[in-house]
Amino acid sequence: MKPIRRSFAALAALLPITAHATDGTAWDIVSGLTTEVGPRLAGSEAEARARAWSVEKLKALGFRNVRAEPFTIRGYVRGTDSAMITAPVPQRLAVSALGFSGATPDKGVEGELVYFATLDALKAAPAGSFKGKLAFIDHAMMPAQDGAGYGPYGNVRRQGPAIAASKGAIGVLIRSAGTDHHRNPHTGATNWPQGAAPIPAGAVSVPDAELVARLAALGKPLRVVLALTGKTVDGLPSGNVVGELPGRDPSLPPILVGCHLDSWDLGTGAIDDGAGCAIVTAAALRAQAGGQALRTIRVLWAGSEELGGFGGDAYARAHVAEPHALAMESDFGADRVWRVGMRIAPAVGQRIVAALNPMGIVPSRSSEVEGGTDVEPIIAAQKLAVVDLNQDGTRYFDLHHTPDDTLDKIDPAQLEQNVQAWTEVLKIVANEPGSLAP
Amino acid sequence: MKPIRRSFAALAALLPITAHATDGTAWDIVSGLTTEVGPRLAGSEAEARARAWSVEKLKALGFRNVRAEPFTIRGYVRGTDSAMITAPVPQRLAVSALGFSGATPDKGVEGELVYFATLDALKAAPAGSFKGKLAFIDHAMMPAQDGAGYGPYGNVRRQGPAIAASKGAIGVLIRSAGTDHHRNPHTGATNWPQGAAPIPAGAVSVPDAELVARLAALGKPLRVVLALTGKTVDGLPSGNVVGELPGRDPSLPPILVGCHLDSWDLGTGAIDDGAGCAIVTAAALRAQAGGQALRTIRVLWAGSEELGGFGGDAYARAHVAEPHALAMESDFGADRVWRVGMRIAPAVGQRIVAALNPMGIVPSRSSEVEGGTDVEPIIAAQKLAVVDLNQDGTRYFDLHHTPDDTLDKIDPAQLEQNVQAWTEVLKIVANEPGSLAP
Repeated sequence: MKPIRRSFAALAALLPITAHATDGTAWDIVSGLTTEVGPRLAGSEAEARARAWSVEKLKALGFRNVRAEPFTIRGYVRGTDSAMITAPVPQRLAVSALGFSGATPDKGVEGELVYFATLDALKAAPAGSFKGKLAFIDHAMMPAQDGAGYGPYGNVRRQGPAIAASKGAIGVLIRSAGTDHHRNPHTGATNWPQGAAPIPAGAVSVPDAELVARLAALGKPLRVVLALTGKTVDGLPSGNVVGELPGRDPSLPPILVGCHLDSWDLGTGAIDDGAGCAIVTAAALRAQAGGQALRTIRVLWAGSEELGGFGGDAYARAHVAEPHALAMESDFGADRVWRVGMRIAPAVGQRIVAALNPMGIVPSRSSEVEGGTDVEPIIAAQKLAVVDLNQDGTRYFDLHHTPDDTLDKIDPAQLEQNVQAWTEVLKIVANEPGSLAP
Repeated sequence: MKPIRRSFAALAALLPITAHATDGTAWDIVSGLTTEVGPRLAGSEAEARARAWSVEKLKALGFRNVRAEPFTIRGYVRGTDSAMITAPVPQRLAVSALGFSGATPDKGVEGELVYFATLDALKAAPAGSFKGKLAFIDHAMMPAQDGAGYGPYGNVRRQGPAIAASKGAIGVLIRSAGTDHHRNPHTGATNWPQGAAPIPAGAVSVPDAELVARLAALGKPLRVVLALTGKTVDGLPSGNVVGELPGRDPSLPPILVGCHLDSWDLGTGAIDDGAGCAIVTAAALRAQAGGQALRTIRVLWAGSEELGGFGGDAYARAHVAEPHALAMESDFGADRVWRVGMRIAPAVGQRIVAALNPMGIVPSRSSEVEGGTDVEPIIAAQKLAVVDLNQDGTRYFDLHHTPDDTLDKIDPAQLEQNVQAWTEVLKIVANEPGSLAP
């Protein structure tokens, strides 16, 4: 429960490496993005300001061929969000609309709130059993170092609203896909099947979900007034920002390092994903410290990741004709790298494992690699080599998609460990003349 | 940063006592108040519901002479709170009006926001220097086991708005008097000198205050739109709830144990002060476990503490003609008791120290005793004996007066340690036939 700042010493003590003197670049980027831009929802005027800021920043840092690459998206424009339990006792809930929620009238919708302890329990409810009612979907997500809970429990957010709608619910509330105990809801996009009519769908904070569960346990019917007035809008402007540190041999395919520039609107996008852009960019620069790298390193600060990976899709469409050598992404906060997974030429992989070993980073025992949402489309299209530097996610879902995603949550010591781990990898792959293919 | 729930094991390990089987009474009270009543702002309809709930609960627990003792107060009725930085970049702030804030129009007031790093810096600003401007008052409160930071840094909230108003400011924002790093502002009452015209006064969360400080450091003028539409209202209904466990000798003056029933409206009043009512009430009952105590124990669940200690004043007015033997209060959360301070007959004090020693509770090295806001007026009027069971306040000001003051923040193991420490003290003082006076 102690604030992050006070746990820096303990967290930094996890890092067995001799401290590298930080050059301040990573902190400067994430501090600038969160302070001078702030929240930057996909498709918004703020995301456009973020692109302008990013182009200037990358140029100032010495990147070449820096440009924004525009595209348009179907986005979500937030309105006013509120939820109030009206029976058996009045209690206000801390709520956020999910991205692509259906809209309520300004005064909201009111009805009985039917409690389900799990997504499976909702699935088992009879079709048509929600006439005039709303569903509440609870779950039991716990923290995990590798973030394993976000798959199954995140499905409550991704799938739950559509399932409730298919059974006739007039609205849905979920326990946030989060592991903290603060009155800050976790937003995020939900999915609707083609042709389905969206219903109002919101997430309440974990303490509010626990309150709903206790009220439901009293055995009296619950009622709720839910007002979520945001709208889904087509044709909103978005875009990626790319820049390069040219290599000594421009004929070799480049190394692509990605992150996303957009953020949810509740916080200021520090850990998700200002930190990722800070890490990959600072490492690309530091990898030149011993001399210009052999291969070009291209950074991709993608737009509109949060609403469906639109930036990654746009990048692949725009650049599929250019060969790439390898792609990596940082999009899991700012806490330390603890594990490396790879799909790469074995001899190169062995050198990476050896370089990361003194930093306490261990090889993954799984053959699965992820790449990340913003680079996955180009990885899939070109069957690229991939290195995953897995970060410690124990507290990631305390902050993810909440108002609490702010600069103070970033531990400078762990941010620096990320930059150094990325630098070690980039120094190897960007100076490898041979094929990186597995 | 880990949520409270996950740190129970670590916190419980601090408790050297052999675990007592909890009777569940304390948890039942604080769970009931937060779930079945919820927030209960002084003077509100919710506080009235809390009184009705409390009368029923105390009767059900076996207390006698249970009644509400009504009085009226000058209260604060919250409106809509919002704050938005508009320059140098748009950034929304998480804000709460302070109690007794002046009201803005619905659209708010707009002006330059002048940053002061400390209350002293504001005091040094020239009179009349705020024409059309608002003040931002920052500070550097840190956590302390004995809560020492709340005195000096809490003065930013108590005194800062009136000082800014005296220099012509049209509004004021402060860094919350808090030690957490969540986007949850800490509300609380502010004070206006007799005859002063209140100005709009709000507190922003600690991460937002840090953002304002970083924006101010950019060197460009800040502008803000502040809307705080709540109102100060006279003649609102409030009241205390009292109940007794009669002693074997009704001629002996009773032991008074206090807490407060009202809470701020942002959270549900779990640690402030549902836990206090839970602790004193459960301990009063458990002190009868070896047989009816010699002296009557009277519980006081005071109303309207948060707005100025109105319940304690009303209790003293109503009961000053009745002799009391000793008064104690619990109003510092639910974390473990670590120290005892006393003003009491020395022989009785020695027995209390000996009884608490096996629980890791040490005697205070200070001669100061506090009693607590709700019992201070009767202590002062009758020069009563006092026992202070000091709780660990290290994380108290992470939660105090915030939306995060919810049931999940209470560690059952530490709550139980409180009940047992109080029981040890009450068994001694309520069975002492001689004078308790120091």
